[in-house]
Amino acid sequence: MNSPLKPGKVWLVGAGPGSPDLVTVRAVRALGCADVWLVDDLVSPEMSCYARPGAHVEWVGKRGGRCSVTQARIQQLTLQHALAGRAVARVKGGDPLLFGRGGEEAAFLRAHGVPVEVVNGISSGVAAAQALGIALTHRAHCHGVTFVTAHTSEHGSPDWDALVRGGTTLVIYMGMSRLAAIRDGLLAAGMRADTPAAVVMHAGGAQECCWAGTVQTLTDALAAGMASPAVVLVGGVVAEAMPRVMALSSAAP
Amino acid sequence: MNSPLKPGKVWLVGAGPGSPDLVTVRAVRALGCADVWLVDDLVSPEMSCYARPGAHVEWVGKRGGRCSVTQARIQQLTLQHALAGRAVARVKGGDPLLFGRGGEEAAFLRAHGVPVEVVNGISSGVAAAQALGIALTHRAHCHGVTFVTAHTSEHGSPDWDALVRGGTTLVIYMGMSRLAAIRDGLLAAGMRADTPAAVVMHAGGAQECCWAGTVQTLTDALAAGMASPAVVLVGGVVAEAMPRVMALSSAAP
Repeated sequence: MNSPLKPGKVWLVGAGPGSPDLVTVRAVRALGCADVWLVDDLVSPEMSCYARPGAHVEWVGKRGGRCSVTQARIQQLTLQHALAGRAVARVKGGDPLLFGRGGEEAAFLRAHGVPVEVVNGISSGVAAAQALGIALTHRAHCHGVTFVTAHTSEHGSPDWDALVRGGTTLVIYMGMSRLAAIRDGLLAAGMRADTPAAVVMHAGGAQECCWAGTVQTLTDALAAGMASPAVVLVGGVVAEAMPRVMALSSAAP
Repeated sequence: MNSPLKPGKVWLVGAGPGSPDLVTVRAVRALGCADVWLVDDLVSPEMSCYARPGAHVEWVGKRGGRCSVTQARIQQLTLQHALAGRAVARVKGGDPLLFGRGGEEAAFLRAHGVPVEVVNGISSGVAAAQALGIALTHRAHCHGVTFVTAHTSEHGSPDWDALVRGGTTLVIYMGMSRLAAIRDGLLAAGMRADTPAAVVMHAGGAQECCWAGTVQTLTDALAAGMASPAVVLVGGVVAEAMPRVMALSSAAP
């Protein structure tokens, strides 16, 4: 009789912001070992250059018009592959531990006895700062930086009052459908209307595109063609970007 | 007559939290191209495996008892090498754009006509979450995460009231000499004394070590042997780490 099959390992791999060379060496190694890839939204198709020959690469989650796979189904799929003894790469954009539901997926798998290793990645908010030519923090401007989502189902909007008072640079994810609400929330919280703000679309990817303005003019980013996936950056540090981003903007077709 | 020498390029490279395989593929490429490395505090010596043969690798900044090179002197050194036509890797721990003074160094070099490219890295706060087995954000707990320094010369302490009210996970850098002040600030701001807190020393490196407790017991981390370099994590998400970190702690010598 065979002994019960040992579950395969699952790597929760941060694929970074887009460009295949913005993943870590550890990620490349994990991706090259995996029998199965389950690949999330927004991960660049180019990333599959790291798959070993014969690996099964499956795209899950919404992409364009295709049907979405639910979070529960993705977790079940990952579990099934692991319990069948396969080495699985669960490939996520950015970092799995920052807005990636990586915590939930890891907890689910560990509860089923599956060994899980998380491989950190570069988050799009950090890549956006690189695109703008700014730092997220600057001794002259602020104590730190806050990464928030514009909205969550459980919590409604962020506490803009507290965030503005905290004085950190704000990096807002998943905010493109709520730019007016973000502007209004920030202004109502007493933020100056001329506080520098920027939007970076496809940060760290081949189609990267930047817009710079102020909190007051934030919705102009939509007219300028900015759309999801994009991150919004707000704060004094963004002013450092202006000449460079303006030059990029005028060079655009 | 020779034409004036074209300045060499400077890469501001994020060397990540410690382990050499936690750098990006782009960083490896930049490091392998550079004629000169100017390497910051806290970068692992192992990173020099990526230097090309004959590259000049120079350690700048404080390490142990050695003399510190001032920030101004580091910038002058970088500039001199670049103006002499050399390709320079300015190697920094974590990400150059998050508490790395990367913005200042890039602005200085660009003002002198030197081309600068920033290569993002994994910050120790993100690696700390990986070490603890938690996510920095969780839909059930919070809207986001804030990375702050415990103190800056220009701004005194962070506005703990606003940070606590903001409700994000807090990741506090450079706080080990101020743990009591952090505890007092958080408690005075109304944070519950039993809010989960953790300290991760050498996150993402070979000597990584974790401690978990609460805001009330934060200074116990010192008695447990935690010391700089370390990051402090505070918030509901840290509770998810407890069983795992406790197991690690009891396994420690």
